[in-house]
Amino acid sequence: MAPISLNPIGIAHSPFHTSHEVPRHGAPATIEIFPAYRNALDGIDSCSHIWIIGFFHNAARDLLQARPRKSSPSSPPRGVFSMRSPVRPNPLGLTCARLLERQGSTLLLDRLDFQDKTPVVDIKPYSPGWDLILSASGIHRYDPSRYSEEELLLALQHDAANALGPSHPSPARSAIIQALASLILHHVDIRSPSTHFAIPIPDERVDLLMGSTAASFGNQRLHILSLPDSVLLRSWTPRIAFDVSICSGSPQLLPLSPPG
Amino acid sequence: MAPISLNPIGIAHSPFHTSHEVPRHGAPATIEIFPAYRNALDGIDSCSHIWIIGFFHNAARDLLQARPRKSSPSSPPRGVFSMRSPVRPNPLGLTCARLLERQGSTLLLDRLDFQDKTPVVDIKPYSPGWDLILSASGIHRYDPSRYSEEELLLALQHDAANALGPSHPSPARSAIIQALASLILHHVDIRSPSTHFAIPIPDERVDLLMGSTAASFGNQRLHILSLPDSVLLRSWTPRIAFDVSICSGSPQLLPLSPPG
Repeated sequence: MAPISLNPIGIAHSPFHTSHEVPRHGAPATIEIFPAYRNALDGIDSCSHIWIIGFFHNAARDLLQARPRKSSPSSPPRGVFSMRSPVRPNPLGLTCARLLERQGSTLLLDRLDFQDKTPVVDIKPYSPGWDLILSASGIHRYDPSRYSEEELLLALQHDAANALGPSHPSPARSAIIQALASLILHHVDIRSPSTHFAIPIPDERVDLLMGSTAASFGNQRLHILSLPDSVLLRSWTPRIAFDVSICSGSPQLLPLSPPG
Repeated sequence: MAPISLNPIGIAHSPFHTSHEVPRHGAPATIEIFPAYRNALDGIDSCSHIWIIGFFHNAARDLLQARPRKSSPSSPPRGVFSMRSPVRPNPLGLTCARLLERQGSTLLLDRLDFQDKTPVVDIKPYSPGWDLILSASGIHRYDPSRYSEEELLLALQHDAANALGPSHPSPARSAIIQALASLILHHVDIRSPSTHFAIPIPDERVDLLMGSTAASFGNQRLHILSLPDSVLLRSWTPRIAFDVSICSGSPQLLPLSPPG
């Protein structure tokens, strides 16, 4: 089949000059659209989030298998089509970011995981109908063996921003994020179909738990339960149960009897 | 900036031979990965949903503005970077589909909106952390002037499958889908920040409403209210309120007094 030729339509500007410097969860960045393509941006201001497809010009193209970044050296390599690694036959990068502002033909983004000068080949609006797949399952990012506590908190903060938007950090929001990080460090797989969560009243915790843990009322992993006043959420698997309560500003895990 | 060369890694097989035949919401399809790239699929079976990036080889590349498909001829053209139109400088198609089965180097998908023989340039797993953006807002697909009732039902069924997975159709699921279609045809903008929904108990309706309407407990557009037994959900905007009840199998909209 004939090769395909693409012309860069813009370029990323970020503070990171090599792929290894790019933080796993990205950083604020801009995309400069070249003058010839400027009119294609008309209307983009109405989109809260945009897909950016870039071309990782420095990535290896001849590898079909790789290890996830920062995984243990003993973990087996996987096919690159089952990973978001930049190493792949056509090293396209796909990432969605919040569009903070458009200044002429420059787009200001809340975060991007592209290194400086990455060519951009396409921009598309996020389409909730196509792109928002609450029921998706598969490999996820909360493997405690790959993350420090600080990185876990960053990953969960990123997912919370996706679920709740950029609104002011609320006490419930930061408490849930810390609680989920504590559970992960206690080797609770928060996205496992057998991990359940309960909260006392339906509020923003629902959005945050659905976005971070894939628990929902539809899959019967999320419950409204009457819980003691001090309890932020209850989590249980077939083996272990925790009440998470907030004591002097930080979450505390209180082990409970496993559910009967 | 230098042009970029991509080599197709596979090809789509679908029943549709022109882009105009492709249903707006896609149809079951397969992707054949070429033998040279087969090992890059290792591990993909663990992903419920995959992104497919294709190259729309027949699409115009010289247009920077276009009208959404099936929009009214009087609607103004928009920049193609603010649309998912195949017409764009680098006509890459981006779509996420459920992976039903892998047979060797062939991937069976629940739906794809690519015409037959579309070259595929990359496959990536859906990553809920990156890709599931509950808080996204912008242009949406439920414009009653662009849709027949049948097309609206299809769009909502597609979104319901994304929210709830492919589980057996439940009476609540089909009733909510019909109820939302009825609301749209009554010109209720179900994704507007001023449209609220209430249900009597938290169940799969929550997932479905969050996925289709962007209402959530976090943004205070979704509420648990004590409602009469016959009422499936209540919907209100500053101007109009409906109780949706189910009578002889189909939803009925009962106009209420606008909220005070």
